[in-house]
Amino acid sequence: MEKNMMDELIEKIKEKKSPIVMGIDPKYEMLPDVVKSKYPKTLEGFAKATVEFFKNLIDEIHDVIPAVKPQLAYFEMMGPLGLKAFKELVDYAKEKNLIVIADAKRGDIGTTSQGYANTFLGKTSLEEYEEEIYGADFVTVNPYMGTDCVKPFIEDSKKYNKGVFVLVKTSNKSSGELQDLKLENGNKVYEQVVSLVENWGEDLRGKYGYSSISAVVGATYPEQLKEIREKAPHTFFLIPGYGAQGGKAEDIALGFDKNGIGGIVNASRSLMTAYKSDLWKDKFTEEEYAKATRAEAIRMRDELNQAIYK
Amino acid sequence: MEKNMMDELIEKIKEKKSPIVMGIDPKYEMLPDVVKSKYPKTLEGFAKATVEFFKNLIDEIHDVIPAVKPQLAYFEMMGPLGLKAFKELVDYAKEKNLIVIADAKRGDIGTTSQGYANTFLGKTSLEEYEEEIYGADFVTVNPYMGTDCVKPFIEDSKKYNKGVFVLVKTSNKSSGELQDLKLENGNKVYEQVVSLVENWGEDLRGKYGYSSISAVVGATYPEQLKEIREKAPHTFFLIPGYGAQGGKAEDIALGFDKNGIGGIVNASRSLMTAYKSDLWKDKFTEEEYAKATRAEAIRMRDELNQAIYK
Repeated sequence: MEKNMMDELIEKIKEKKSPIVMGIDPKYEMLPDVVKSKYPKTLEGFAKATVEFFKNLIDEIHDVIPAVKPQLAYFEMMGPLGLKAFKELVDYAKEKNLIVIADAKRGDIGTTSQGYANTFLGKTSLEEYEEEIYGADFVTVNPYMGTDCVKPFIEDSKKYNKGVFVLVKTSNKSSGELQDLKLENGNKVYEQVVSLVENWGEDLRGKYGYSSISAVVGATYPEQLKEIREKAPHTFFLIPGYGAQGGKAEDIALGFDKNGIGGIVNASRSLMTAYKSDLWKDKFTEEEYAKATRAEAIRMRDELNQAIYK
Repeated sequence: MEKNMMDELIEKIKEKKSPIVMGIDPKYEMLPDVVKSKYPKTLEGFAKATVEFFKNLIDEIHDVIPAVKPQLAYFEMMGPLGLKAFKELVDYAKEKNLIVIADAKRGDIGTTSQGYANTFLGKTSLEEYEEEIYGADFVTVNPYMGTDCVKPFIEDSKKYNKGVFVLVKTSNKSSGELQDLKLENGNKVYEQVVSLVENWGEDLRGKYGYSSISAVVGATYPEQLKEIREKAPHTFFLIPGYGAQGGKAEDIALGFDKNGIGGIVNASRSLMTAYKSDLWKDKFTEEEYAKATRAEAIRMRDELNQAIYK
């Protein structure tokens, strides 16, 4: 059997018994002073502090989590230097055998989407010259423009053994404005999208039955999570909204199948700022921020496993 | 009255009698050999060739078009260097008094969308330190995540006198898969989106009645263009799909109001590669590519005006 990126992700989750992806969301105010104070307060200093901070987190927790999810918006805020920092962290995470999900939420008309797919998953070709740009393993994609928008990402997933998470039901408050609109045929918009995702992923199903073309479904809407799990048995979930946004472990468990697989849960703020959380601030100093993140990742892992395997 | 970015765009269109925005889509195969051959076939060479080529086009046609629309996908394909090239071209276009529409189709949950809004329209703040990243005038936004995704772009539009084009009905073949879905209430999804856009733009209407928060509506769907023009009188249109994609001048005219305003038409490939088009290849040499682009821009302008003002 050919390699399948979703199989690789699922195997890493099993191996580490940890369905957690650490969000890499470099917000200036979230970085600890012990790191920030080493660098000038400029975009360049911010980019350097970002790389130092997240490399340290990765060093400390790469054995307890299977994946990281850098959020492009925060890297783009630093300008071109931010994209260099993004690349450096993608490379570092891959060296540490982590799966990298580029959270870019891209999408455009076909030929232009090809550009985004090549940027994040594939290669840029200048006639016979080829170069990998970021080499992420997965990228998030916005489905509003339909099949011809998503297709280049599927093609690159086939060609380079990569994968895609398509936005289906997002974790934010206003996600229902479009996604929950009820259609004439009785379905909601997000149900229509998830049925498209099931089709798009047909050729890329791996040995666990899940496809490398899968979906983003928020922890903040547990009913939908449950319903989509039932309707889309080949669609793996990237689940944002755990912790800071309000999603609970028992809600999240609804997105998993009877074998305890089917999703990976994102945690950004709660991992990054564990060192100053009520739970850990008395146990770790600011200098020990990475150890606090590790402790929180283990706590989350256990909490999630308890809910998933109960 | 306060400054309003949509007024500025409309005034530039009127002044130049030209409702055309030139798409800046740097595809390697589209750049003329006379430019490419000066630089090594690497990402850096590609980025330099891109800057040279589009600066020359801007020099030649800035008096006959009001705006440019760089497509981020193609710049991102060059990695961080591509974003530097993007910035250089945004600055150059603004020096030449052109309006810049960053075609990024971004969107995320609220706090993350703020990052994108700051990147393209506003400023990045590191506590008291602030820096403008790209300083575009408009950015395109994907509405799939609803109001809290779009709101940061609206806020930055207010704060920095900028604007937004929200994807409503896109020009690609599969746009209908989601956008045309018929809702229980009889509306289609894109109609629901355009009514959100009318609301989002309420505070940012200028003296021509159009808001700085407006919409992308493709020339390839003339019926919808007409229908949306009637339903959304304060929503200005960014109209892709003219020329290479099949949209005709008489179709596009349906998106304009009785005063001949209401939209700006994108042309990318047909302007960039005018020098090798059937129409112009015998009149201009490859070295004269910028003059060919100018001739084609004038031809388009006249063709569009004839259809709009007939």
